[in-house]
Amino acid sequence: MGLKVAVVGATGAVGTEMLRILESRAFPLDELIPLASSRSAGRTISFQDRDVAVQELSLDVLRGVDLSLSAAGASVARGFVREAAAAGTVCIDKSSAFRMEPDVPLVIPEVNPEALGASPRIVAVPNCTTIVAMMALAPLHRAARLRSLVLSSYQAVSGAGRDGTRELAEQIEKLHDQVEELGHPDLDALPSGDVFGKTMAFNVLPKVDAFAADGSTGEEVKTVQESRKILGIDDLDVAATCVRVPVPVGHSVSLLARFTRAITPDEARELLVDAPGIEVRDDPVEGVYPSPLEAAGRDEVHVGRIRQAPGHDDSLLLFACGDNLRKGAALNGIQIAERLFSTVG
Amino acid sequence: MGLKVAVVGATGAVGTEMLRILESRAFPLDELIPLASSRSAGRTISFQDRDVAVQELSLDVLRGVDLSLSAAGASVARGFVREAAAAGTVCIDKSSAFRMEPDVPLVIPEVNPEALGASPRIVAVPNCTTIVAMMALAPLHRAARLRSLVLSSYQAVSGAGRDGTRELAEQIEKLHDQVEELGHPDLDALPSGDVFGKTMAFNVLPKVDAFAADGSTGEEVKTVQESRKILGIDDLDVAATCVRVPVPVGHSVSLLARFTRAITPDEARELLVDAPGIEVRDDPVEGVYPSPLEAAGRDEVHVGRIRQAPGHDDSLLLFACGDNLRKGAALNGIQIAERLFSTVG
Repeated sequence: MGLKVAVVGATGAVGTEMLRILESRAFPLDELIPLASSRSAGRTISFQDRDVAVQELSLDVLRGVDLSLSAAGASVARGFVREAAAAGTVCIDKSSAFRMEPDVPLVIPEVNPEALGASPRIVAVPNCTTIVAMMALAPLHRAARLRSLVLSSYQAVSGAGRDGTRELAEQIEKLHDQVEELGHPDLDALPSGDVFGKTMAFNVLPKVDAFAADGSTGEEVKTVQESRKILGIDDLDVAATCVRVPVPVGHSVSLLARFTRAITPDEARELLVDAPGIEVRDDPVEGVYPSPLEAAGRDEVHVGRIRQAPGHDDSLLLFACGDNLRKGAALNGIQIAERLFSTVG
Repeated sequence: MGLKVAVVGATGAVGTEMLRILESRAFPLDELIPLASSRSAGRTISFQDRDVAVQELSLDVLRGVDLSLSAAGASVARGFVREAAAAGTVCIDKSSAFRMEPDVPLVIPEVNPEALGASPRIVAVPNCTTIVAMMALAPLHRAARLRSLVLSSYQAVSGAGRDGTRELAEQIEKLHDQVEELGHPDLDALPSGDVFGKTMAFNVLPKVDAFAADGSTGEEVKTVQESRKILGIDDLDVAATCVRVPVPVGHSVSLLARFTRAITPDEARELLVDAPGIEVRDDPVEGVYPSPLEAAGRDEVHVGRIRQAPGHDDSLLLFACGDNLRKGAALNGIQIAERLFSTVG
């Protein structure tokens, strides 16, 4: 018999991807319960060619649910996950609420499946940028042990949810016929959005999430802390700069990774070609290198531009792109569920 | 008496900025001679409220010209610069043709004006990405000597000239009402351009310039080599990844700089506030941080997001944005001319 599965945040950007992925995989689902805030409750979503009513999230409605796949934000997650888990629902949560809790495994199935060992009731899905970076680095880390990491990101607007995509779309609509004039912009006339704070169209913003006291953003702190937890290296040396770019879907990372032994680009390519969930796109002279638009809608993380860092035989430069809504969130959560409910080896 | 000044490539993206900048500054110009390829010769450009005919570039037309400001590419530059210089014209060249020649100074006036010492006949303007990075780093290097640099760039399409901007504009026009559908793109239906090779709109491309045998791009090689020459550190440890983003004007760089002594973000801010050509934009909680759209059309390089690299008191993270057509090319060239012809101290 199949599972009773709730998708929390079913009408959002990640929730929608969860529904599509559940439809396309042989997941042992018996009943789907789409949940959302009161604002979206009452709407219907389409699932396996049927219309299903969206219900308002509550602990009551989660009673008897085997699995909660949550695409909601941290404050919503804090309001129900611990209680639902205590009542017997396995909660896979993509928010940042529980990622750093010592009793909650933070899991990318291809990277650290061993963290799922003790049949946990709550499992956290890492941050989307961290997932893309760790997918590219873990196969190399296993072979040559990662010593330090410098990361600069190029993050899609859908990382800020449907509102992020909508804000970019509105600004593009307003500015699409002014591209050639934006070299001397009238800043006062440019749209400044509620989601991104400054004009996102035709711009890049070195700000993802809120600023902390030390000048880092929440996203940068997450990337550092989560990388350490996932790889199990408490003192991993990580420097991260997280930047939003006017791309709808697909996060990219520029990586400089230093290992504890020499490693060549050829060895790295061999390791990555054999790694699950990775597609090596690294034949630059033939135009084969990763870009986020090519990674959007795909399950694999694309890795390319693999080079020796000049003068350092223990260091590699890489560029990786992954669908932030899929492998960066929805797919990763469903892969965790597949492991927990033993539909994969 | 003023100077007879040729602007080579006067109808291009950088050439147009040169004309605007010459108009707006008290440059001792007596006669302007706009030059271009045979394709553009015969057109007129507007300069100081007069129409001036564009002539075809030739050594003949450069005879008697005091100063050539060249915005043309490397192959055009190779065809005339040495000869024109031998005939007495001071040639300031923004192409990559002569930058690494031992007898040609490679100059950012705020960074290494001493390289102009011997009244050179040819001076090269560095690559636009290198200029933005060096402007941000040189004041810190002077105080704490730079030891290594990791750079990831976010480069505007106008770095590929007018054709680059046009290609982005055309693709935006084609896709502007499909932003919300690009999460599952039909790659075969997307425009792939002549200039960028892949779809540039709503995408980022980790390819600027052509690929070399070792997998680096020309832009990455330039950034490494030119940084070393400008700072006079032959073995400076530099790792660069250069990425094109769908921004019309304004190059950004994410930097991790390691110095030979401890340096704090506060000290760095003080050094940068006092540095000419720099605007410190670093009050993130108040929404003050750099973005390329805000730097477009401006002379200053904007620097912000200044942070200590976690765990390294000798290392800083910074984010800098500059107008690639102005400080990254046209303005820097004219500032060199102002120094050579003594209109600035």
